[in-house]
Amino acid sequence: MSTAVAGKGLEGIVAANSGICWIDGDAGVLAYRGIDIHELADNSTFEETTYLLWNGRLPNQFALREFQAQLALARSVDQHIIDLLRGFPVTATPMEVLRTAVSALSFYDADEKDNSHDANVRKSYNLTAQLAMIVAIYDRLRKGKEIVPPDRSLSHAANFLWMLNGVKPSETAVHTLDIALILHADHELNASTFAARVIAATLSDIHSAITGAIGALKGPLHGGANEGVMRLLYAIDKAGADPVEYVKNMLAAKQKISGFGHRVYKTEDPRATHLRRMSEQLGKDAGQSKWFEMSRAIELYINADKKLNANVDFYSASTYATLGIDIDLYTPIFAISRIAGWAAHIIEQLDDNRLIRPRAEYIGPVYPAHWVPIEDRV
Amino acid sequence: MSTAVAGKGLEGIVAANSGICWIDGDAGVLAYRGIDIHELADNSTFEETTYLLWNGRLPNQFALREFQAQLALARSVDQHIIDLLRGFPVTATPMEVLRTAVSALSFYDADEKDNSHDANVRKSYNLTAQLAMIVAIYDRLRKGKEIVPPDRSLSHAANFLWMLNGVKPSETAVHTLDIALILHADHELNASTFAARVIAATLSDIHSAITGAIGALKGPLHGGANEGVMRLLYAIDKAGADPVEYVKNMLAAKQKISGFGHRVYKTEDPRATHLRRMSEQLGKDAGQSKWFEMSRAIELYINADKKLNANVDFYSASTYATLGIDIDLYTPIFAISRIAGWAAHIIEQLDDNRLIRPRAEYIGPVYPAHWVPIEDRV
Repeated sequence: MSTAVAGKGLEGIVAANSGICWIDGDAGVLAYRGIDIHELADNSTFEETTYLLWNGRLPNQFALREFQAQLALARSVDQHIIDLLRGFPVTATPMEVLRTAVSALSFYDADEKDNSHDANVRKSYNLTAQLAMIVAIYDRLRKGKEIVPPDRSLSHAANFLWMLNGVKPSETAVHTLDIALILHADHELNASTFAARVIAATLSDIHSAITGAIGALKGPLHGGANEGVMRLLYAIDKAGADPVEYVKNMLAAKQKISGFGHRVYKTEDPRATHLRRMSEQLGKDAGQSKWFEMSRAIELYINADKKLNANVDFYSASTYATLGIDIDLYTPIFAISRIAGWAAHIIEQLDDNRLIRPRAEYIGPVYPAHWVPIEDRV
Repeated sequence: MSTAVAGKGLEGIVAANSGICWIDGDAGVLAYRGIDIHELADNSTFEETTYLLWNGRLPNQFALREFQAQLALARSVDQHIIDLLRGFPVTATPMEVLRTAVSALSFYDADEKDNSHDANVRKSYNLTAQLAMIVAIYDRLRKGKEIVPPDRSLSHAANFLWMLNGVKPSETAVHTLDIALILHADHELNASTFAARVIAATLSDIHSAITGAIGALKGPLHGGANEGVMRLLYAIDKAGADPVEYVKNMLAAKQKISGFGHRVYKTEDPRATHLRRMSEQLGKDAGQSKWFEMSRAIELYINADKKLNANVDFYSASTYATLGIDIDLYTPIFAISRIAGWAAHIIEQLDDNRLIRPRAEYIGPVYPAHWVPIEDRV
């Protein structure tokens, strides 16, 4: 058997060729299809960025209108899915609900048995529209509120806030969420995207791959970290404690601080730069700088003491909190953005597919051990 | 960035240390915890084999009784899940239904938020019992039949056949299915198990990891291949064609024949050896050797002409067909066995965890490309 032993967690191993996302972890560069994330965050929209991720180029006016129209057209949730969401217990977390509802979407997708490139593009429009609506609808249902019907005239970010809150969102809120969606839309072979590619590479369907990706994103070492950050800020606030002292005590007790460090970046995560700026500005505008200031104090201490940089999750927490979004919706919001990247990667995988099947280094009982009758076992 | 480029599909790359399963692909050896699969197929039961996979050793009499009691105790399906299954459209495939229902199980699991080793062992008992029952219950519901209540006095294999068919299964049927469950229970880092480990390594929950694994198993390059084999046999039978001529024509038309070749085995898949024997014996006993004989003719031709060996999927098709099992239940039966291995791998991953996060080789537009205003785009 000829095998190569990889670092634990496949660190530094190239598992696929991909033309979607470029990361230079030493220089702190992230680019989608060659375009720097800072340029996109400053100028683009989630819709335009999704087009870029799926098509490899920015859309012209005609293409963008067509894309927005397709996405808006997909903005209606099958009554069966709404009934399903109504039947789920209100104690279910939004990530469990999203995972289950996306899995059930395949029952009602006319393209379910068609795994062609074109069918998967159609399914990607649907899934992108559905994920956001499912999160908003379930949040209202669990709070005993009426479902807010989608508004096809709004942008993706604005429609999500509208369906979530039932009031027309402010321009600041829409713009902030739109940038957050751009920043989270793709990140090369992160764990959820890699899970999606492993599943898709068996030639299973895109619903299976996205369902698996949602399950991976849920984990606290991945998307779940943004919720961990906000739980920490709330705990510090509730205790009336000094943030730096609180974090020092946690570190002394060997507890992990969410939102710091990254497998790939050795410098600052370029997404954190944007989110820090947004968090600060939002706090000023809202006259509510508490979460930003607490975050900044913790960041400076961890930078100095642990030489760790804030990652994408750290300032998304205070940003979403200042927007008034519930803590257990942070990871679902990550999902309603990352679906853009998941879909791009699944389609890229299927366009030049090979089963992803590594090997294990065996460390168990030496072969051949033997089966013995039960009465002879100790 | 220091990275190593792996073969496509991570071929030959060691992605984890594991003490569960030993495969020597050159010698055609498969062993669970060091014990050869042939010894287990000849002597063991699915329950004993699952204990072995989870605990690293064969159980003594006390331990096996306790294990069987735990598994039987978990043999009741929450009424919410039954209601959910009743609500699914009868056109949904059993694998979509299984993926969705397993995802929903987490809503009703008291241990959902506990990701400790012990909690995951408890959840593994539950999931092992639930998967088989969900498959059986949904099959009856879609056929308009009454649900058959579980029988705690039966073995896992016997209870599945009982709940599926509503008649006490023959000894031959139980023994055949039990061996099939042993043979499918684990296979090192196959695509579904690897997907489960990638998901679990984010510290997400076991329901997320198993849901993702079911999605991966569904693919025709993985568990879905056994359905492909039987569809071929049915097509040949319906056409009244000679099997070898039929397959020759398919190959000439560049069509893929399911059930042959394997990423890891260069010799015969040792599971195929057992399944061939079972398929032949079952055919004789039932006076229905058609599927076996057709399979054998195809196998000999593909061996000689393509130098490809039958894999685990090839003779499981004719075996299940002779047992009278519907074609779209073959992959779900793979799942109700492989849950044993998935659970073992997830727990092993979490006992010594690191996020699984490889890199991609970037082949997209050169950085920095630039964002340009939409009116300047062609």
